[in-house]
Amino acid sequence: MGTFWLVFGGCGSAVLAAAFTADGAKIADGTKFPLGIGLVGVSLAFGLTVLTMAYAIGHISGCHLNPAVSVGLWAAKRFPGSELFVYIGSQVFGAILAAGILYLIASGKPGFDVIGSGLAANGYGEHSPGNFSLVACFLAELVLTFMFLVIILGATDRRAPQGFAPIAIGLALTLIHLISIPVTNTSVNPARSLGPAVFVGGWALQQLWLFWVAPLLGGLLAGFFYSQVLEVPTPERQFSEVS
Amino acid sequence: MGTFWLVFGGCGSAVLAAAFTADGAKIADGTKFPLGIGLVGVSLAFGLTVLTMAYAIGHISGCHLNPAVSVGLWAAKRFPGSELFVYIGSQVFGAILAAGILYLIASGKPGFDVIGSGLAANGYGEHSPGNFSLVACFLAELVLTFMFLVIILGATDRRAPQGFAPIAIGLALTLIHLISIPVTNTSVNPARSLGPAVFVGGWALQQLWLFWVAPLLGGLLAGFFYSQVLEVPTPERQFSEVS
Amino acid sequence: MGTFWLVFGGCGSAVLAAAFTADGAKIADGTKFPLGIGLVGVSLAFGLTVLTMAYAIGHISGCHLNPAVSVGLWAAKRFPGSELFVYIGSQVFGAILAAGILYLIASGKPGFDVIGSGLAANGYGEHSPGNFSLVACFLAELVLTFMFLVIILGATDRRAPQGFAPIAIGLALTLIHLISIPVTNTSVNPARSLGPAVFVGGWALQQLWLFWVAPLLGGLLAGFFYSQVLEVPTPERQFSEVS
Amino acid sequence: MGTFWLVFGGCGSAVLAAAFTADGAKIADGTKFPLGIGLVGVSLAFGLTVLTMAYAIGHISGCHLNPAVSVGLWAAKRFPGSELFVYIGSQVFGAILAAGILYLIASGKPGFDVIGSGLAANGYGEHSPGNFSLVACFLAELVLTFMFLVIILGATDRRAPQGFAPIAIGLALTLIHLISIPVTNTSVNPARSLGPAVFVGGWALQQLWLFWVAPLLGGLLAGFFYSQVLEVPTPERQFSEVS
Repeated sequence: MGTFWLVFGGCGSAVLAAAFTADGAKIADGTKFPLGIGLVGVSLAFGLTVLTMAYAIGHISGCHLNPAVSVGLWAAKRFPGSELFVYIGSQVFGAILAAGILYLIASGKPGFDVIGSGLAANGYGEHSPGNFSLVACFLAELVLTFMFLVIILGATDRRAPQGFAPIAIGLALTLIHLISIPVTNTSVNPARSLGPAVFVGGWALQQLWLFWVAPLLGGLLAGFFYSQVLEVPTPERQFSEVS
Repeated sequence: MGTFWLVFGGCGSAVLAAAFTADGAKIADGTKFPLGIGLVGVSLAFGLTVLTMAYAIGHISGCHLNPAVSVGLWAAKRFPGSELFVYIGSQVFGAILAAGILYLIASGKPGFDVIGSGLAANGYGEHSPGNFSLVACFLAELVLTFMFLVIILGATDRRAPQGFAPIAIGLALTLIHLISIPVTNTSVNPARSLGPAVFVGGWALQQLWLFWVAPLLGGLLAGFFYSQVLEVPTPERQFSEVS
Repeated sequence: MGTFWLVFGGCGSAVLAAAFTADGAKIADGTKFPLGIGLVGVSLAFGLTVLTMAYAIGHISGCHLNPAVSVGLWAAKRFPGSELFVYIGSQVFGAILAAGILYLIASGKPGFDVIGSGLAANGYGEHSPGNFSLVACFLAELVLTFMFLVIILGATDRRAPQGFAPIAIGLALTLIHLISIPVTNTSVNPARSLGPAVFVGGWALQQLWLFWVAPLLGGLLAGFFYSQVLEVPTPERQFSEVS
Repeated sequence: MGTFWLVFGGCGSAVLAAAFTADGAKIADGTKFPLGIGLVGVSLAFGLTVLTMAYAIGHISGCHLNPAVSVGLWAAKRFPGSELFVYIGSQVFGAILAAGILYLIASGKPGFDVIGSGLAANGYGEHSPGNFSLVACFLAELVLTFMFLVIILGATDRRAPQGFAPIAIGLALTLIHLISIPVTNTSVNPARSLGPAVFVGGWALQQLWLFWVAPLLGGLLAGFFYSQVLEVPTPERQFSEVS
């Protein structure tokens, strides 16, 4: 259900509301007021799906919505390998269901075209929103997933303040989208990339490999890095105070 | 008072500030700077009415601002059926009062026209902001109210972190508006739909049934689902940690 | 210092950043990208001045930044009348100092004109940003200050969750600005109105009375209302749970 | 790593996403929808880098991302002078590494020009985004860094609510950017200014002195002020309550 909400809410806000205009509101004759939520709103929406679900079901399932997160937690020895495939399977199922329901709602608008709109699928090169190259897209996904996992591992560390992790992690996803929607439409989550790609088909499926390889690699590296480097026992310190 | 604030703040921001422009600020000769808060600002406003009221009166009344929430909590056996009608009556009264005061303020601007502006009433088909069909609008309201109630029930669960529920629930309403203002102007709250409809009349009253049926149904289903499926006793888990 | 920050940050963001454009970024030939923060950004800035100061100095002075708040807390018997004039005097001094420094910075931009820009002073009628009438402006300031005080009194109630009050109160001020900047430029704070008016002079000083009378009256009413109606002893309740 | 994230995330959002437009989304024939995140999004991004890192590594290193913060904490006697150079060295290294990776990603877009885009370097006079004078820029950086340090020192004070400091400090940085991006592109952080300047060269290096002198001076003054004036023992007070 968590990944369902992430794809439905995040991609839904992008498809339904990002570039919305109304006939009544104008900034000049013939020029409409840009009422839509733009990339700020989409970034906020993605982050809030995680923040809200983490408070809602974090105490039930641990709230993994992302195969790269599950793999990173496994690499950091915080998640048993035996549950990995069940979790990733559920995430993929939720993402496809969400993209399907979003497709049903979006096609209730006259003139909707799934190929043209792309259902917020991820892409590189000519399918990058800002035409960024394959190398730039791979590097961005790798670095951002690495940092995302460091934040997740740190904010859920026993030494971090209790109860605040969903805020830190949700807003980290907002931040990641603020940086990189023009680069790849932002994935850092293989399941989130797969859902829309199933309905868009064609190029979205052909480019899907990058959005599995780069995030999973970034998650793995962060898991090893955090558990080997940052988790060494240090005396407890309070934020901004050094002894 | 809570529902008064939700309708006054949420609908008020939409009516008074969404598409504001000033003569002095321009992006080209004859083209004004879009200073208004747009759909991002309206989404934020709706969410913050809930966040602020939940901290202000949550300890007094439990802070139900929404008949679909009261019904969902009743279905999840967290709210006594005997208080249901008193709560829903207060919510409807608060919503009408808020729409009335908003109407008074809005009509203090030269040229204000309640029928044309719609006072942020909800609608489907030709009265959907983005002309979404009745089926798409019903589906959106049903799914979003269902998820809203799951978040409310989860974030106020005894196993969730204490004190954070107003943040999770308020920002969930922001997220829901980020997704669906173009679809139905976003209700997920029968009382919020009723308030403005009383002053707009005509089509707003004729279409009001959908914004009672879909949210109440979504709330009911979520209440049963949460109490039957997610509330089964599990060992306590911390967010993002599995054993 | 708190009121200094509120006026410097809130009015500063409005004067310096609300309608910013750059030559390099365009949405069409001759039409600049609206990079400025608009009313959403200004609303966020005002709220964040309160949120940040409340965490920074809340434990030192109680963090009153607003004569209407001090008066409302006095009416609710949470603040001694003997300290009222010292607090209000400090608030007025901080607001004038902030408007002065802001004036110095703003006039470092070629072509700056304090009369034309208004330094974010508050106004009604022809000086209302959206030309709202005196009655609409008075009503808006009265209702919004009343609700602001209810939120402050509720969120700092001993029965409310500890530590979260600055978030609730800061974001309440953001919400109030999201609703009402087009109406009065939003005051709900007599000191905030006085600071810029001193430098703008003329109409800003002539209209200043409304931004002292309406907020102080709203604060007084809320103080009496909260202490008489909402503070009656009730059994403790958790948010969203009714026994 | 913290300063890496601040520069990569903050400057990255500015360079990659601030003024983004897409061919498909229009507000008039030939006029694109301003989808980019603008100054609101960049302000949010800078603040969220601090908020997320403070929860992620605050318990490990104390999470200083800024030489002016380290110096201010030293002046307030909360940080040992012996560690000052190691911390500042790490901050400078992280900032340069971040600007380098950002440069690699940004140059993956056809037509990217580091001199023209400026990589979000800071500047005054003709290199101020809004052409603000040297004096206005110096004053803004000085006042804002002073206030930033007061908030940091206050929010991490033992008398402040526990666990909330990262929210207060991160959102303080958002607020500071909301006010001052048009003035200096906002530094308040010498390391953040140095990173992009290394790659932009020329004017950015020539103007770099201001973004070391003004923030460090503001930090020093705030450290002395807080420890001498605000840290005098007072009876503990709860926010908004006076006895």
